[in-house]
Amino acid sequence: MAEFALIDRFRQRAGSRPDVALGIGDDAALVEPPKGQQVVLAVDTLVEGVHFAKGVPASAIGWKALAVNLSDLAAMGAEPAVALLALTLPSENAAFVDEFAAGFSALADTHRVALVGGDTTRGPLAASVTVMGYVPKGQALIRSGANAGDDLWVTGTLGDAAGALALWKSGIPMLRTGALRERLDRPAPRLGAGLALRGLATACIDVSDGFLADLGHILAMSGVGAEIEADALPLSPALRDAFPDITARRALQLTGGDDYELCFTAPPKKRAAVQAALDAVATPATRVGRITEGASLRLFDADGLPLALPPRRGYVHFIEGGA
Amino acid sequence: MAEFALIDRFRQRAGSRPDVALGIGDDAALVEPPKGQQVVLAVDTLVEGVHFAKGVPASAIGWKALAVNLSDLAAMGAEPAVALLALTLPSENAAFVDEFAAGFSALADTHRVALVGGDTTRGPLAASVTVMGYVPKGQALIRSGANAGDDLWVTGTLGDAAGALALWKSGIPMLRTGALRERLDRPAPRLGAGLALRGLATACIDVSDGFLADLGHILAMSGVGAEIEADALPLSPALRDAFPDITARRALQLTGGDDYELCFTAPPKKRAAVQAALDAVATPATRVGRITEGASLRLFDADGLPLALPPRRGYVHFIEGGA
Repeated sequence: MAEFALIDRFRQRAGSRPDVALGIGDDAALVEPPKGQQVVLAVDTLVEGVHFAKGVPASAIGWKALAVNLSDLAAMGAEPAVALLALTLPSENAAFVDEFAAGFSALADTHRVALVGGDTTRGPLAASVTVMGYVPKGQALIRSGANAGDDLWVTGTLGDAAGALALWKSGIPMLRTGALRERLDRPAPRLGAGLALRGLATACIDVSDGFLADLGHILAMSGVGAEIEADALPLSPALRDAFPDITARRALQLTGGDDYELCFTAPPKKRAAVQAALDAVATPATRVGRITEGASLRLFDADGLPLALPPRRGYVHFIEGGA
Repeated sequence: MAEFALIDRFRQRAGSRPDVALGIGDDAALVEPPKGQQVVLAVDTLVEGVHFAKGVPASAIGWKALAVNLSDLAAMGAEPAVALLALTLPSENAAFVDEFAAGFSALADTHRVALVGGDTTRGPLAASVTVMGYVPKGQALIRSGANAGDDLWVTGTLGDAAGALALWKSGIPMLRTGALRERLDRPAPRLGAGLALRGLATACIDVSDGFLADLGHILAMSGVGAEIEADALPLSPALRDAFPDITARRALQLTGGDDYELCFTAPPKKRAAVQAALDAVATPATRVGRITEGASLRLFDADGLPLALPPRRGYVHFIEGGA
């Protein structure tokens, strides 16, 4: 593996920022965080055959490897700054690397993220990305701040990525499902929404493992419960067209992951402020329930009738040969 | 994969630091770098069958996955602070994870490194570690500062890890080579030496890919050449006992990697200061040559006679089935 030649292919697209004193090419990178800011750090790995199928375009893998990490920064209300990439490749494949880098840098450039370091190794295809961002001290959106009485909100629409994966696994041609597939392959991290929610949201998480599973983390860490109106979960036209209502609303939306929407809580008195803040960054958001005392998570339909919780709340991103 | 149960096994050993505002358990970690410091970031991945053999104890993999990264911080003259771990495992194996975590945290605790985040995924065994440290602005040891006339130094001894790997691959029982094997499995990053060299070294790199290969990076980035006295390269008693002199001195020491010693340059007028600074942190160091004008790298023996450069300067850490 000509590691240095591969790194050069990334270096050309690495981007620059005034806070990056030294980027790719030394033993480590040097970055100067702005005064008064905490640094925010996250890492996530995508593995072929586990998180994505063989045959997914390299540009989509590059995009998504960064996107899932930027989504973690969004969920903290952080502004992204730099990324490091550990890329493991089965063979030296310059075309793959160029495509991967194109996808990665397309998203990085959109959010002014500089790639400051990395490592290319030989082995089964996997990409592990670390991101660092900034948030003013005390303003991070954490999971543990939800209070009984808070509204529960989600951005965008839920279930689209899981819908795309289900169709892909079924072998059904995705003639009318380009929008769903785009949600699965090129998720758009809600960074603008995360910033807009500073000072408004009491708790926040990104929906990566499934709405109920991720909401469960907020509830557990905040020591609260929730009542959800399942039929209020925002449904995209593409998902509605591709699946029967019961599949979309009672399975994909509740337990499907990979949506990278934000799920957050805020006091009812901030309702108008939340709506205005998210309107300002052109991010749709929907109230889907409320936080309660206790630890129970309860689902209701549009008529207020209780619904059973699905037996499995999480989501299997992709497993070779079926979940 | 019960990701959260595995993360809990790490969380118990994660360590704490006053600069860590929020560790494992949220979407991202929050860290407050000390005022006036740059943050130093590095990432490195170890893959089974590429960087280590099947059957290496999990505790050694955990130790080494952190060590190779701390070595990058050492080479920058940085003080380590926090780490993130992306661990990919073929199956849920609590015993493996516990052993891995024990090795990782043994080294982390030694250097007061807190584990603040991570990701466990299913897939072929690999560990990707990101480290963050601190260095006062302008004091980082970079690769590009070597000047013609500078002394060239290395810490410790060279070739031991490559010797252990060669013996391991040969199938020769390592009766008397425990010291070599320890160098391969549990390298000790030269963090104290890196700190001691702030303000003294003009350039620095850690020896991970082989002495000549890594020195080559200093030369290329500094725009200089070097003359090396090959017989001055520091040789351990264990390596001397295990190999013929010519194998040890003309192959393993020159091109063997995985030593994680520091290779650095400093002006001759700082010779006594360098020696005193490294004595103070109990790190042996040896002058092995000098930096020259031009771009050529020349080797000499103890009599000043020129030696041919090895055809291959780099090092293959480990490849399944032989290099």
